[in-house]
Amino acid sequence: MQRPSGRSVDQLRKVTITRQFTRHAEGSVLVCFGDTQVICTASVEKGVPGFMRGEGRGWVTAEYGMLPRSTGSRMGREASRGKQGGRTVEIQRLIGRSLRAALDLSRLGENTITVDCDVIQADGGTRTAAITGACVAVADAVSYMRDKKLISDNPLSQLLASVSVGIYQGEAVLDLDYPEDSAADTDMNVIMGESGGFVEVQGTAERAPYTREELNRMLDLAERGIKQLIDIQKAALAE
Amino acid sequence: MQRPSGRSVDQLRKVTITRQFTRHAEGSVLVCFGDTQVICTASVEKGVPGFMRGEGRGWVTAEYGMLPRSTGSRMGREASRGKQGGRTVEIQRLIGRSLRAALDLSRLGENTITVDCDVIQADGGTRTAAITGACVAVADAVSYMRDKKLISDNPLSQLLASVSVGIYQGEAVLDLDYPEDSAADTDMNVIMGESGGFVEVQGTAERAPYTREELNRMLDLAERGIKQLIDIQKAALAE
Amino acid sequence: MQRPSGRSVDQLRKVTITRQFTRHAEGSVLVCFGDTQVICTASVEKGVPGFMRGEGRGWVTAEYGMLPRSTGSRMGREASRGKQGGRTVEIQRLIGRSLRAALDLSRLGENTITVDCDVIQADGGTRTAAITGACVAVADAVSYMRDKKLISDNPLSQLLASVSVGIYQGEAVLDLDYPEDSAADTDMNVIMGESGGFVEVQGTAERAPYTREELNRMLDLAERGIKQLIDIQKAALAE
Amino acid sequence: MQRPSGRSVDQLRKVTITRQFTRHAEGSVLVCFGDTQVICTASVEKGVPGFMRGEGRGWVTAEYGMLPRSTGSRMGREASRGKQGGRTVEIQRLIGRSLRAALDLSRLGENTITVDCDVIQADGGTRTAAITGACVAVADAVSYMRDKKLISDNPLSQLLASVSVGIYQGEAVLDLDYPEDSAADTDMNVIMGESGGFVEVQGTAERAPYTREELNRMLDLAERGIKQLIDIQKAALAE
Amino acid sequence: MQRPSGRSVDQLRKVTITRQFTRHAEGSVLVCFGDTQVICTASVEKGVPGFMRGEGRGWVTAEYGMLPRSTGSRMGREASRGKQGGRTVEIQRLIGRSLRAALDLSRLGENTITVDCDVIQADGGTRTAAITGACVAVADAVSYMRDKKLISDNPLSQLLASVSVGIYQGEAVLDLDYPEDSAADTDMNVIMGESGGFVEVQGTAERAPYTREELNRMLDLAERGIKQLIDIQKAALAE
Amino acid sequence: MQRPSGRSVDQLRKVTITRQFTRHAEGSVLVCFGDTQVICTASVEKGVPGFMRGEGRGWVTAEYGMLPRSTGSRMGREASRGKQGGRTVEIQRLIGRSLRAALDLSRLGENTITVDCDVIQADGGTRTAAITGACVAVADAVSYMRDKKLISDNPLSQLLASVSVGIYQGEAVLDLDYPEDSAADTDMNVIMGESGGFVEVQGTAERAPYTREELNRMLDLAERGIKQLIDIQKAALAE
Repeated sequence: MQRPSGRSVDQLRKVTITRQFTRHAEGSVLVCFGDTQVICTASVEKGVPGFMRGEGRGWVTAEYGMLPRSTGSRMGREASRGKQGGRTVEIQRLIGRSLRAALDLSRLGENTITVDCDVIQADGGTRTAAITGACVAVADAVSYMRDKKLISDNPLSQLLASVSVGIYQGEAVLDLDYPEDSAADTDMNVIMGESGGFVEVQGTAERAPYTREELNRMLDLAERGIKQLIDIQKAALAE
Repeated sequence: MQRPSGRSVDQLRKVTITRQFTRHAEGSVLVCFGDTQVICTASVEKGVPGFMRGEGRGWVTAEYGMLPRSTGSRMGREASRGKQGGRTVEIQRLIGRSLRAALDLSRLGENTITVDCDVIQADGGTRTAAITGACVAVADAVSYMRDKKLISDNPLSQLLASVSVGIYQGEAVLDLDYPEDSAADTDMNVIMGESGGFVEVQGTAERAPYTREELNRMLDLAERGIKQLIDIQKAALAE
Repeated sequence: MQRPSGRSVDQLRKVTITRQFTRHAEGSVLVCFGDTQVICTASVEKGVPGFMRGEGRGWVTAEYGMLPRSTGSRMGREASRGKQGGRTVEIQRLIGRSLRAALDLSRLGENTITVDCDVIQADGGTRTAAITGACVAVADAVSYMRDKKLISDNPLSQLLASVSVGIYQGEAVLDLDYPEDSAADTDMNVIMGESGGFVEVQGTAERAPYTREELNRMLDLAERGIKQLIDIQKAALAE
Repeated sequence: MQRPSGRSVDQLRKVTITRQFTRHAEGSVLVCFGDTQVICTASVEKGVPGFMRGEGRGWVTAEYGMLPRSTGSRMGREASRGKQGGRTVEIQRLIGRSLRAALDLSRLGENTITVDCDVIQADGGTRTAAITGACVAVADAVSYMRDKKLISDNPLSQLLASVSVGIYQGEAVLDLDYPEDSAADTDMNVIMGESGGFVEVQGTAERAPYTREELNRMLDLAERGIKQLIDIQKAALAE
Repeated sequence: MQRPSGRSVDQLRKVTITRQFTRHAEGSVLVCFGDTQVICTASVEKGVPGFMRGEGRGWVTAEYGMLPRSTGSRMGREASRGKQGGRTVEIQRLIGRSLRAALDLSRLGENTITVDCDVIQADGGTRTAAITGACVAVADAVSYMRDKKLISDNPLSQLLASVSVGIYQGEAVLDLDYPEDSAADTDMNVIMGESGGFVEVQGTAERAPYTREELNRMLDLAERGIKQLIDIQKAALAE
Repeated sequence: MQRPSGRSVDQLRKVTITRQFTRHAEGSVLVCFGDTQVICTASVEKGVPGFMRGEGRGWVTAEYGMLPRSTGSRMGREASRGKQGGRTVEIQRLIGRSLRAALDLSRLGENTITVDCDVIQADGGTRTAAITGACVAVADAVSYMRDKKLISDNPLSQLLASVSVGIYQGEAVLDLDYPEDSAADTDMNVIMGESGGFVEVQGTAERAPYTREELNRMLDLAERGIKQLIDIQKAALAE
């Protein structure tokens, strides 16, 4: 089996994380997983949604979008169609849920961090890139809040990162690009923390059901890939 | 550890599947997982969505809803709010995607089966009950199509069923009801086919990340539960 | 003239009212007029809409929906189309208006009762069944409020029930089922209270205009039918 | 009992019908019932809605709106709120349904007449004025179609008109203006044809239920009022 | 070059401004530029939008609409399509912005004037007619506020009026009607105040770009036309 | 008078145009006017909107959006609010209209070019930057079409560019950044073609009306600025 990109089965694409990519947001990151490019901003706002008011805890939420021509053929702009598609809703809920698992909301005060992940160019794995980049943007937003004395303790319990794995032509592979993704039998997105625990596992049989052994092989690859991604996050944050 | 319901950790709630529950639909099932009650109908219509026309293949899609007072406090009616919520969208996409994995769409002709899963009463696990019931409704719709000579071959490759598992008070438990679900550390929905393969695994850390061992214990429970559910499906279909 | 169902012109379908049909709502009723089956729940919530705040009076409102496959061919789900159709809006306004006429809102305190009428299976007369069932659900919700000492006086002035009448093949008939309804020259919905007064009369010429005599014959039938329905309501409430 | 306007109980407000009020529509009428002023246009378009195509029959439909400041305090513009309110939907369905009862659609060819009723100034009874004016606009549109040889036979079976009646301070009164309408115990809208038959009767108890005798007194008034309205329509059409 | 209407290049259509056109609004004007007829109402309401609260300043905003059959062929009703079109949004923003430039909002107290411009009949230049009429309606609303002692100082700094100019068959012409507007090379809308300054200039090349000389010739015509319009406004306000 | 940026009154910000910024679109440009950064893509699709079908002519349209955190404080995402704001609609209509003035649509065949302008970072003048960048993206899309033999003649008549001018602290200045824009008395956007003609002029008095002399001074600056912008466009296209 030969991957279309020539990568080995356990090889990530070239991953880069550029901080302070735009100037207004408290955290602003351009994350690239190969040709997949996502701008992740983290915005700090006072206050929390109504259902949380008065509890002294903060909130983290996420929104996701794709530029209409981030893809091979133009997709209709969700703002002009008047609603977000099901895939968009699914992804942004995943991003928000994951990030909340990385934070101790009781240390955030009654503040909201809104993460926006906007895909500039898509080549498979936009949600895993988005989560990986968003976590760094949130780390920067948290630093901003501590610098400005908005909070005293660090609410970020640990870094988390995400990668896709799948069964492509019978073999488990790491970090699928679009040609692999569109031909894979199984597509799984894994989100893990620095500590090595799972935050989310979502594995879908696109063609035939997958076995427990295949599941295990995919998880092995994911664990290794996520360790590397967290190293890249740390290197970016150290700059 | 004592489960609120007194069940053992690997014990399903009482599951019943009533076929021909309403009279108009080609497949109509009331599925109960304990106090969770879902009406699943499968409607057969000629034609497929535009993007599939002319390929000779069929389509299966699903929609999900909850009656406003299926829950402890009344939820706003999505029809009057003018949009389906994110959770609804996520669940109905999961149901449709799973069912398509159970069918050979090329044997369906250019027909669409639309599955509607409407929750009458909720007590945790509505999506797993919905998938388990919907699969039986689809089996009935397929029988209808064969009886009416709309199709000749059987497109249903295998039955599939779904159950939730989770980590509740440190232990892996099967088929969480609402009191468990709202207190669990991890919530995982598993969909498997008769053949024993995974169609979908979705595991979310609600509080702390979960370990590989916890994941494995949850999957063990899910495999056992789903075998029982498929037996219940088969018994219902044999009536 | 022979009615499709073989009923006499002044004969109701078999009507059943099942209380405590689901477990969460303060009032929960399954009402059946023959094959027409509607779940009616009454939910009690603190507070009233903004325009009524501070007056010390309560509010009653209603929403109506049909499960997509409650009918012979599948109807699009209103939640996914993003708006309620004109017929839905018309019916739910009728239900709410009627129920408010049965209650002394000044005895309700600043509480809102929201009635949800969801049609599980349709065979003509869904709105009249809904009103008849909803009134019982409201009676149960009112009992709940008195038991919980949320209110002291009984706000329910009287029971009310509803039935359809029509001119079918030249003759006035009571409680039309779908085959009659779709062929009738005139379709009239009548809502009356225990005291014998009219709460609402809506009569529409579907084909030719109807005469004053036809109107009178229909109203005679309706009066008799509604008396029987109120007896059935009372029997259900006595259980 | 003294009516606020000083009218006798069976007295219409001053009613005027101005044809050719605007220049583009095939039928364009300004109808005034006292201070209630409605522009009714009838637009002829080729073709019918999809569900009727190929049957050789025509269609008549109606839309209703109120200018935001046609009323005492400004109402939000429905176009900017993004949806029509329940009352609007209810009224425009009533107008369309009534007008279809006045026409033999099989004589209309596959053409659609769309009636727009826009309230310029409101003082009670906007729906009855709208129907009364719209019928004249449709008559003009039908004449236009016959002049242009779009149709050969006259599809307009008869004129129809509409008026409100009610129980105001214990007495039945004809053609309620806003001060009466907002204080009436019962409000009934009646639509009748030239031939004297009922096209629609809608009577709502706003406070206490109404008796059969009150219903009869209201219908007597309505019959007399509608005869006068049809004379005014005929006079307008004769100009 | 001969204009379709026979007017000279610098000749306005017959312009009339009728005050107190409807009875409910604080300012109500029917403005006609030839066959273009627009009802402009100005409604005074207590309070300002959230973002301005507590500053002691007022707000002026505008909404614009066309009756569906104000035009040669029927346009879909924006309220039933569920959104305002781009042209509508553009025009109502222009009207609101312009009127705000005519008022000293600090003299308006925390009150809002909402202007509604509804086109009854269209023949080109609806936005310029709307602005010209709306300014008179606002003047009346301001007088009402001073009479009622809602404000003490006059917030209306000056009258402003608007007219279209264009390049039609190579020549600059004033106040284009629909036949000219639809054939013009350039279409420019100019809004000026009594003092002779520009409030807004919007000139669009419909076919070929226009030169600085053409721009100057159009502005010369516009200045002259607007002076006449302001005289007509003053005459109307003097009645 | 000192500009906040220290620029002279007739000095543009640093303008850069990067072609082939993303890989999927037929034309893809990153345009920067100082800190204002906009991604402009031009997508070529077969076919034209329904109202143009069969005429053999092409169509050009534009959509505009801002990333939620392109601005100093986060703006709500239009896709999740379910509608585009008035400002967005106004700008995208302006972009589309302008570009159509630069193209001979009859040379485009029945193809549509959709331009997407997405603001990554905003610092004033986003619409003028968008138009300036979009024109280059369209030029690249046209080259693509000619290379692929989709069209034979060049439909692009001329390049066009856009810049803002305004009256800031009493003086006319070129290319306002955000601090100037938010404090300017007058804000004018000018679009001109290579040939020197005006495609669009939009000048709005933000505070006091502006005089004819001020208008002329602004246009003089705009003419000069646009000449420089067209030189920058040509240099980028020559690379």
